[in-house]
Amino acid sequence: MSPRSTVRGPRSGFLRPEVARLPGYSPGEQPSDPGWVKLNTNENPYPPSPRVLEALRAVGPDLRLYPHPDAEPLRGRIAAFLGLSPERVMVGNGSDELLSILVRGTVGSDGGLAIPTPTYTLYETLAASTGARLSQVPFAADWSLPEAFDRAASRARLVLLANPNSPSGTVVPAERVEVLARAVRGLVAVDEAYVDFAERGCRELLDRLPNVVLLRSFSKSFSLAGARIGALAGPADLVAGLRPLKDSYNVSRLAIAAGVAALEDLAWMRRNADRIRATRERLSAGLRALGFEVPPSQANFVLAIGRADARPIHEALKAKRILVRHFDSPRLRDALRITVGTDEETDRLLAELERIGRVGGGGAA
Amino acid sequence: MSPRSTVRGPRSGFLRPEVARLPGYSPGEQPSDPGWVKLNTNENPYPPSPRVLEALRAVGPDLRLYPHPDAEPLRGRIAAFLGLSPERVMVGNGSDELLSILVRGTVGSDGGLAIPTPTYTLYETLAASTGARLSQVPFAADWSLPEAFDRAASRARLVLLANPNSPSGTVVPAERVEVLARAVRGLVAVDEAYVDFAERGCRELLDRLPNVVLLRSFSKSFSLAGARIGALAGPADLVAGLRPLKDSYNVSRLAIAAGVAALEDLAWMRRNADRIRATRERLSAGLRALGFEVPPSQANFVLAIGRADARPIHEALKAKRILVRHFDSPRLRDALRITVGTDEETDRLLAELERIGRVGGGGAA
Repeated sequence: MSPRSTVRGPRSGFLRPEVARLPGYSPGEQPSDPGWVKLNTNENPYPPSPRVLEALRAVGPDLRLYPHPDAEPLRGRIAAFLGLSPERVMVGNGSDELLSILVRGTVGSDGGLAIPTPTYTLYETLAASTGARLSQVPFAADWSLPEAFDRAASRARLVLLANPNSPSGTVVPAERVEVLARAVRGLVAVDEAYVDFAERGCRELLDRLPNVVLLRSFSKSFSLAGARIGALAGPADLVAGLRPLKDSYNVSRLAIAAGVAALEDLAWMRRNADRIRATRERLSAGLRALGFEVPPSQANFVLAIGRADARPIHEALKAKRILVRHFDSPRLRDALRITVGTDEETDRLLAELERIGRVGGGGAA
Repeated sequence: MSPRSTVRGPRSGFLRPEVARLPGYSPGEQPSDPGWVKLNTNENPYPPSPRVLEALRAVGPDLRLYPHPDAEPLRGRIAAFLGLSPERVMVGNGSDELLSILVRGTVGSDGGLAIPTPTYTLYETLAASTGARLSQVPFAADWSLPEAFDRAASRARLVLLANPNSPSGTVVPAERVEVLARAVRGLVAVDEAYVDFAERGCRELLDRLPNVVLLRSFSKSFSLAGARIGALAGPADLVAGLRPLKDSYNVSRLAIAAGVAALEDLAWMRRNADRIRATRERLSAGLRALGFEVPPSQANFVLAIGRADARPIHEALKAKRILVRHFDSPRLRDALRITVGTDEETDRLLAELERIGRVGGGGAA
C-alpha cells in the first residue's frame, strides 16, 4: 500500500507562506501488490487498445530527441476528433496539468474562481496554490446546478465545472451550461474527463460561445491513466495565450505515440465504454437494492449514499482487499464513490456489501 | 520544419494581464523530416540504452492504472544514485517542470529571483510568469561568477544557477557555489542538467548546506529527451512543501519504466558521455583553429564566439541542413551554441564552417 498522509512535519522556511499552508490533493491509494479489487480511482477495468502497446513497442532511438513542443501529431488528431482546428487545442501531461495552467493563466491571486460543490477536490487545491478567491455553491439536492451558482459565479474570472461531476457522477445538461456561460463574464471550463461514459457532452457549446473551454482526458475511457494525456480545447487566442505557461516539452514522445494509437482504435474505447455503462446500471440497481441512494450516474463510477458515516464500510471492504473512495466532508460522509469495475469485481463488491450489511457493519439498509 | 514564431495575434481577454504579456520560451527548431544534422537543442547523438527500449516493450495492460504519485520506484533509484534518502527527491516531467514548481513555490509575485546572465532563457520566462522581481548580473568575461552577483542575490528568495551553464558550457566550481550559498539568505538551486559531461558537480554541497537544491535531467546524458524525466534534490522539508504544487500523477508509468531501466545501465550512459567529451575537445580545437573563441566547455555543447553577428553563419549552415543555435541578445549575437554530435556530424560541421569562412560569409577568422 501507498498511504498518502496529509500529516506534515515542520515546513521549510524557503517556501512562500501560502504554499507552506497548502494541504495538497490526496489521490486515492495505489496498492503495489496484486490481488486488490481497485474501485477507488476511476480507472478503466479493461486494458488499453493493443495498438497502443504496439505503438510503444515501436518506440526506438528517437527517444533521444525532444518531442514536438505542441505534441504533434497528437494535437492534430485530438483536434480532428473534436472537430476543431489544431490551434484551438493544447495537449497536456494529463488534464490536471491543463487545469493548473488554466487557473494560473486566468485567475491568479487577484481573481475569483467559482465551483459547485462537492466536486473534484483538485480545484480547491489549485485555488489555494494561486491565492485565488474561491466561491463555492452547493449542488441542489438532486445534483442540478442552482441559479444561485450563476449569481455567485457572475464576476468570477473562471468557473470550473466537472461534467459529469465527481463524486456524484451526475450531469448538468448542455442547455443549462449554456445558460451559465451566458450569465457570467468569465470563462466556463467544462471538465469532461468522464464524458465518453455520458449520453452527450458540451462540445457543441464551443461553436457558439466565446467563453467556454473543454477539458478531456485519456485516463478513463481510453484506459491510459498511466500514460498521462489530457487536452484543453477553447478559443484560439486563449490557447495561444496560455502556451507560455506550459513547459516547452510537456508531452513526451511516449505519450504522443500512445495517444495517437488510441485515437486510431476508437472502436476499442467505445466498446469498453459500452460495457462499463451496462455494468454501471447493474451496480446502481444492486446498490439501491441494498438500501443506498444512488444518483443517476453518467460516469464510470457511482456515488452510494447511506444513512450513516460510511467510513466503517470503507474499512470493512478494505479488509477484504476491496478499495473504494470515502471523502471526509459533511455532505459526503455517509457516501462511498465506487468505480465501475468488471462484472466480476462488481459482483464481489455487492456480495461483500450485502454481508457487511447483514452483520450490522454500519450499512445503508 | 517546425518554426516556432513568437509573433502573436490579439490576446484573449480572459488572460491575466501579466500572462498576456509573456513572450514565452522559444525552444530550438525540431525538424520532422530526416537528413538534418541537428546540433541546436543539446540532444545526445547516441540512442538510449537498449534496456530502456526493452522496458518500454514490456509495458502492458497496467497502463490503464495511474502511476505512483511520487514516481516510485524511480524516485528511490534516483535517490540511491545520488546517495540521498527518497524523501529528499522529487521526480518531474522533465526538470523544466521542477524549475517551474520551485519558482512558484519559493518566489511568487512578492519575491526576488537572481540569475547570472546569459543563461538558460527559461529562468526569465518563469520569473515573468510569476511576476517575480528578477536580478540579473552578467557573468565575468571569463564566465566566472563575479562577487557582484552574490551581493545582488543576497536578498533574493531563489538563485538559479545552470552549472554547467548554457550557452557557455562553463562551470562555476563547487567551492565558489558554496561561497555564494553562504552569502545569500535564499535558496540556491544548481541546475545540473549537463553535469554528467563535467569533471565534477555540486552534489557534495547537499550534505553541508541547508539552502542548496540540485536539479538533474535524463534528457542529455541518458539520451532520454523524448521521455521527459527530471529530478529535484534538496532538504526533505522543502521537497515535502513543494509537493502540493505538482500534479498528483506528474510522471507517467512510461517515464518511470524508462528512467529505472536507464539507471540500471549506467555504463551505457557513461560510455556515451566519454565519447561526447572526446568529440567536444576535438570540436573546440577545430573551432579555435577557424578563429572562434570557445570557452572551456564541460557540457555536451560549446559556444563558438566570432567577431561579427553570427546569424549569417547560422543561416548558411541551415541551408546545408545543419542546425545550430543562435541567440539574438547583445552578448551572444556574435556566437553560436553548437551541440556535440557524433564525430561524423562534427566533421561535417567543421568542413562547412571552413567553407563558409573562405567565401567570406561573415565568419570568425
